[in-house]
Amino acid sequence: MRRALPAAVLLTLLCTNAPAQDAAAPPKTRTPQAILDAAPASAWRDLDPANTLYMELPDGRVIIELAPDFAPQHVANIKTMARGGFWDGLTVYRSQDNFVVQFGDAEGEEAGKAKPYPSGTRTHLPAEFTRSADGIRFDRLPDSDGWAPQVGFADGFPVARDPATGRMWITHCYGVVGAGRNNAPDSSIGAELYVVIGQAPRALDHQLTVVGRVVKGMELLSTIRRGPPPMGFYTDTAQRTPILSIKLASQLPVAQRTPLQLLRTDSQAFAEATEARRNRRDDFYTQPPGHIDLCGVPLPVRPTPKAP
Amino acid sequence: MRRALPAAVLLTLLCTNAPAQDAAAPPKTRTPQAILDAAPASAWRDLDPANTLYMELPDGRVIIELAPDFAPQHVANIKTMARGGFWDGLTVYRSQDNFVVQFGDAEGEEAGKAKPYPSGTRTHLPAEFTRSADGIRFDRLPDSDGWAPQVGFADGFPVARDPATGRMWITHCYGVVGAGRNNAPDSSIGAELYVVIGQAPRALDHQLTVVGRVVKGMELLSTIRRGPPPMGFYTDTAQRTPILSIKLASQLPVAQRTPLQLLRTDSQAFAEATEARRNRRDDFYTQPPGHIDLCGVPLPVRPTPKAP
Repeated sequence: MRRALPAAVLLTLLCTNAPAQDAAAPPKTRTPQAILDAAPASAWRDLDPANTLYMELPDGRVIIELAPDFAPQHVANIKTMARGGFWDGLTVYRSQDNFVVQFGDAEGEEAGKAKPYPSGTRTHLPAEFTRSADGIRFDRLPDSDGWAPQVGFADGFPVARDPATGRMWITHCYGVVGAGRNNAPDSSIGAELYVVIGQAPRALDHQLTVVGRVVKGMELLSTIRRGPPPMGFYTDTAQRTPILSIKLASQLPVAQRTPLQLLRTDSQAFAEATEARRNRRDDFYTQPPGHIDLCGVPLPVRPTPKAP
Repeated sequence: MRRALPAAVLLTLLCTNAPAQDAAAPPKTRTPQAILDAAPASAWRDLDPANTLYMELPDGRVIIELAPDFAPQHVANIKTMARGGFWDGLTVYRSQDNFVVQFGDAEGEEAGKAKPYPSGTRTHLPAEFTRSADGIRFDRLPDSDGWAPQVGFADGFPVARDPATGRMWITHCYGVVGAGRNNAPDSSIGAELYVVIGQAPRALDHQLTVVGRVVKGMELLSTIRRGPPPMGFYTDTAQRTPILSIKLASQLPVAQRTPLQLLRTDSQAFAEATEARRNRRDDFYTQPPGHIDLCGVPLPVRPTPKAP
């Protein structure tokens, strides 16, 4: 072979199109994609249009699943603001490499320039950093985690749980959406939001209110030109990315929605796909790592299949 | 306060410009930046021009520190290829969200189209996935890690070490540069390189040869438009990013080099800055996490100070 082949290099890494296997040789293990392909319809759930945000950027749609079971008051406020068109015409005004993009009203602190909140918006909310671990199913990962006593999934979100306090919280993995705040814990209302675009900043866990997770369109946020260091706020305001609109999916006619399904994190298929990644055995991986980290577990999304 | 202030939101997160503290109140702890500012000159090291690559992209320069102590044969081959202008006019032909960008000869596997290697390039190399843990200083982190028995830093790189095997390897953190390969462990020669642009894919550790780390310009790679899923290889070849050139810093006149210094990972300042992040105590963080993960430890870089 002349050299490492570009089209083949790393082919088996995170690959969902598994290379054809020799028919005579038994497959070493089912690939995660093969497991997903074989999953029953019941393993998938539809996004709830009433808890889904469509963020329309010049290059396309970013889809965010809200987390009302974790931050009910922030999510309710965000819905009020979305219905009132709060973010329409505002911007992504921060992009810090390997950390977050942030959006909302870049001039919210300037007297006379701040965009008024829509009617019904609450201008003070309690911090919703954690919730009770009771009353919600927790599918625990067996893998160790340096940040929390227990980690796993709940309601489709990556979470941590502390048996000592009885609390649970969404963890700051790639794509997670949180509410920016000032020093006071109760200084967020959901108007200014950030999205994780780099190595999971788990030190933020249970220090801010997490309101949801991007389920489609992360590549539109992650490639936004970075602002100047250290924090990525643009000094040249022309570099901000305009937000055409942020609406609830339920505000749009069905024909304008993006029909998506997510793999249930309490499904057997999800557990099996995760295990297949934890202990990959194929022609590329000679030494299965035997470990997976919470923020490295993919949360599969697919277009909703057409009704038969 | 009217709302969460954009300019202030998350201000203290990863902030190197610490907000002014009330002169009457003692600082709660020294910030990482304050520790760096007070570090002696001896805590900093110059990049070695003979082991530094300048990758010139249309939007600027990406600077890569090579790791000859970890992958001597790959690094030697990469230097031969850089001196011979191998990558000049080639492209970044893959960009997969939350994973890697990859560059080299997109047509390397097509007979008659592959760019010839410069004279002296070796077309077969042994795998250099790990090295002996002997003969190299290891500054261990006390923090647990799910992927390896021990993690820390060596020669400025994030590494893992296994006392049972006596081996050490560079870990796949954000910005790490590795040599793409096919299924055969010894199928890389350093011509096709990938750079981690997302959550650390630690499952790749000791499965590929790591050749270095981006020390400046990551934002130029991380924002490259993504190619189509699942793997991010562009199907529209016009979307590839041209590489103007890749040269060793030592090939350039001194005036054209970028004088940079890196904080020594064996310095007291580095240990103190890391500890300050592990147990942040300031007006924003009310509960210090008491933990830091290997790939979350910043490796500070600064312009080389002018000689007095």
